[in-house]
Amino acid sequence: MHLVIKFGGTSVGSLERIENAARKVIEKVKEGYKVVVVSSAMAGETDRLINLARQLDNFPPEREVDMLISTGEQQAIALFAITLNKLGYPAVSLCGWQVPIITDHVHTKARVRKVGIQRIKNLLKEGYIPVVAGFQGVTEDWEITTLGRGGSDLSAVVLAHALGADCEIYTDVEGVFTADPRIVPQARKIPRISYEEMLEMASLGAKVMQARSIEFAMKYNVRIHVRSSFSDVEGTWILPEEEVMEKVAVRAITLDTKESRITVVRVPDRPGIAYSIFKALGDAHIVVDMIVQNVSHQGYTDMSFTVNKTDADLAESIVRKVAGDIGAQEVVRDDHVAKISVVGIGMKSSYGTAAKMFEVLYRNNINIMAISTSEIKISCLIESKYGELAVRELHSAFIEEGEEVKVINET
Amino acid sequence: MHLVIKFGGTSVGSLERIENAARKVIEKVKEGYKVVVVSSAMAGETDRLINLARQLDNFPPEREVDMLISTGEQQAIALFAITLNKLGYPAVSLCGWQVPIITDHVHTKARVRKVGIQRIKNLLKEGYIPVVAGFQGVTEDWEITTLGRGGSDLSAVVLAHALGADCEIYTDVEGVFTADPRIVPQARKIPRISYEEMLEMASLGAKVMQARSIEFAMKYNVRIHVRSSFSDVEGTWILPEEEVMEKVAVRAITLDTKESRITVVRVPDRPGIAYSIFKALGDAHIVVDMIVQNVSHQGYTDMSFTVNKTDADLAESIVRKVAGDIGAQEVVRDDHVAKISVVGIGMKSSYGTAAKMFEVLYRNNINIMAISTSEIKISCLIESKYGELAVRELHSAFIEEGEEVKVINET
Repeated sequence: MHLVIKFGGTSVGSLERIENAARKVIEKVKEGYKVVVVSSAMAGETDRLINLARQLDNFPPEREVDMLISTGEQQAIALFAITLNKLGYPAVSLCGWQVPIITDHVHTKARVRKVGIQRIKNLLKEGYIPVVAGFQGVTEDWEITTLGRGGSDLSAVVLAHALGADCEIYTDVEGVFTADPRIVPQARKIPRISYEEMLEMASLGAKVMQARSIEFAMKYNVRIHVRSSFSDVEGTWILPEEEVMEKVAVRAITLDTKESRITVVRVPDRPGIAYSIFKALGDAHIVVDMIVQNVSHQGYTDMSFTVNKTDADLAESIVRKVAGDIGAQEVVRDDHVAKISVVGIGMKSSYGTAAKMFEVLYRNNINIMAISTSEIKISCLIESKYGELAVRELHSAFIEEGEEVKVINET
Repeated sequence: MHLVIKFGGTSVGSLERIENAARKVIEKVKEGYKVVVVSSAMAGETDRLINLARQLDNFPPEREVDMLISTGEQQAIALFAITLNKLGYPAVSLCGWQVPIITDHVHTKARVRKVGIQRIKNLLKEGYIPVVAGFQGVTEDWEITTLGRGGSDLSAVVLAHALGADCEIYTDVEGVFTADPRIVPQARKIPRISYEEMLEMASLGAKVMQARSIEFAMKYNVRIHVRSSFSDVEGTWILPEEEVMEKVAVRAITLDTKESRITVVRVPDRPGIAYSIFKALGDAHIVVDMIVQNVSHQGYTDMSFTVNKTDADLAESIVRKVAGDIGAQEVVRDDHVAKISVVGIGMKSSYGTAAKMFEVLYRNNINIMAISTSEIKISCLIESKYGELAVRELHSAFIEEGEEVKVINET
């Protein structure tokens, strides 16, 4: 049986941690698995290198950025392979171009096109543990690319798919929780979660795994086990919906304080207004999240939307310009907003979740500024000072008092 | 006209120094050269990485060491290319495997077998400055190799040969001197020196360039200009003998204090004795330099030789063992020896150099422990406390009072 084991930056953040990670690999080898290791760069190294490049040039050529930052993973895999060899387990490190993991030409956020798995299979057959650099790819004409932040997760899932293997992701948390345990002490680890739920959570601010890698896993049914490199307990399995035995209406509560709200006040309510605003934002590559348009009064309306805080300055200046052109009264920006969400695949086949969520917020005198929904989540925009209270109250209502999440042991 | 410009580790030791180096390149581009840059790793980086590996394993697998240490040059070329781009000169960095510079499989000291020059030529044609990682190679089956300490010099000379170009080596000294200026204030920069002389000097402890790269340059007549990245003055040209206009008997005086002398005392003088000693040392890959065997007295002789100080402990323990087997009286080790040499291609066609050297040492009461000669150099082993005195006296006798070294300006 093949198994892909991926280690994040903190899991290989020092020589001691690399040795700890290597021992986890060896345990699995002893259990009879044919293991492929995928490693991120040592914690902090990628940022250090990006900083060097930025000191030279605020907008360094992305091809050269990839050349530079891909060295972080290359160092980590060499040190990892040296450690495995020292512990008596022959290992061979491989760069992305040596596998090869072939991508398109979009430097710093390349998409994987093909993966050559023969060399890895040969190494496994000869008894070696291949240690593959995460995050790295190569174009058809031998240019080094990288897969974007968190791209090592994608490397791991892609290789697991190519080998028909499961994928273990070692990180610095014990798994996926029903809420952030720093906010909700009663938060529980989720033993199994569906790709759809995990994907919603990733886009709602949960940082456990890169969203693209979950999409890829969903597409090819790669089973993922997210767990801590600093303990031996089971983590969270991310699985196809049909394998997640327990279907609860609400799996988890998330809080995202990384957005700002921008409101265009008293816009003449005529066709094309929304288009002019959001066209201008789209042209600037700004992703807009929640959009609310009030009911029109006497030919005027208000239009609100949220953007990532890092885009808020740019978005505000763009919208101010458009607001002038379309005759709006003013533009108001609010940085003190929070998006609180309940996520659960069971919502598809249950009802009353939205009503219950609104009731909990109402009972706590928390005003809702905007609402957005998908099949498996409901998000409300609220004042950020109520964020943590809302998470605790919703967790209590939906998860602690709700259906029990039964822990299923994977062995 | 093509030109290969190579920068050593101190020349790219910080972002400021990389920018300084980039400006040297741009000057040459403005003069009309089609320039290829070769860069070493930033000063200290290779040692830092080797240290990490050694902390994990005293003898890490050499394949993995190459994977690890080759990242130093990769970082340097990316930063160099970013700098050139920012200064308005489009540049593209290339790893050894992207050129490709193809080597044998001897990791950490691979030999170059082939070089593919088409990609570099194409980049030059399209107006880019290729910035190539020194020190790196790749095997035919895509394994990363390195070319040994100082291997970036070899990368540069190999590329210069492939392009039919001259090679500029930027380093932290102004060129090759008639003696170490820290010992002899009157030492002069040598404007032109032959490959043969440079090669002797490299093996006698002058650290200006890697010996293998000079051998390669000699074989293919690659003209090399060694100069300082911290000034604009002409350095030293390393050239075919026929291009070195001035033929002096003695070009330079060198001092090497990195050897130890080991003496096997009172060895029975019979056939096979030298063989048993030097076979044992050769089996341990220890390079023996000067060997002296005394005239036999009553069936016994003394045998002395020098080895690099880093090998002295091992050599001593091996020789002690052999000494017991062959019935020698004792083994004496002396770490306080120095090898003083006079080097000059003119020696081939002059005479009296050896006599003059011995006379200078004799006049200063310096005892000679061993002598070795080649066509173009004479070396004497002396007590190390006399080393600097000997250099000064020989420099005065052969160079200051000898033929004038005429400075020929290269333009």
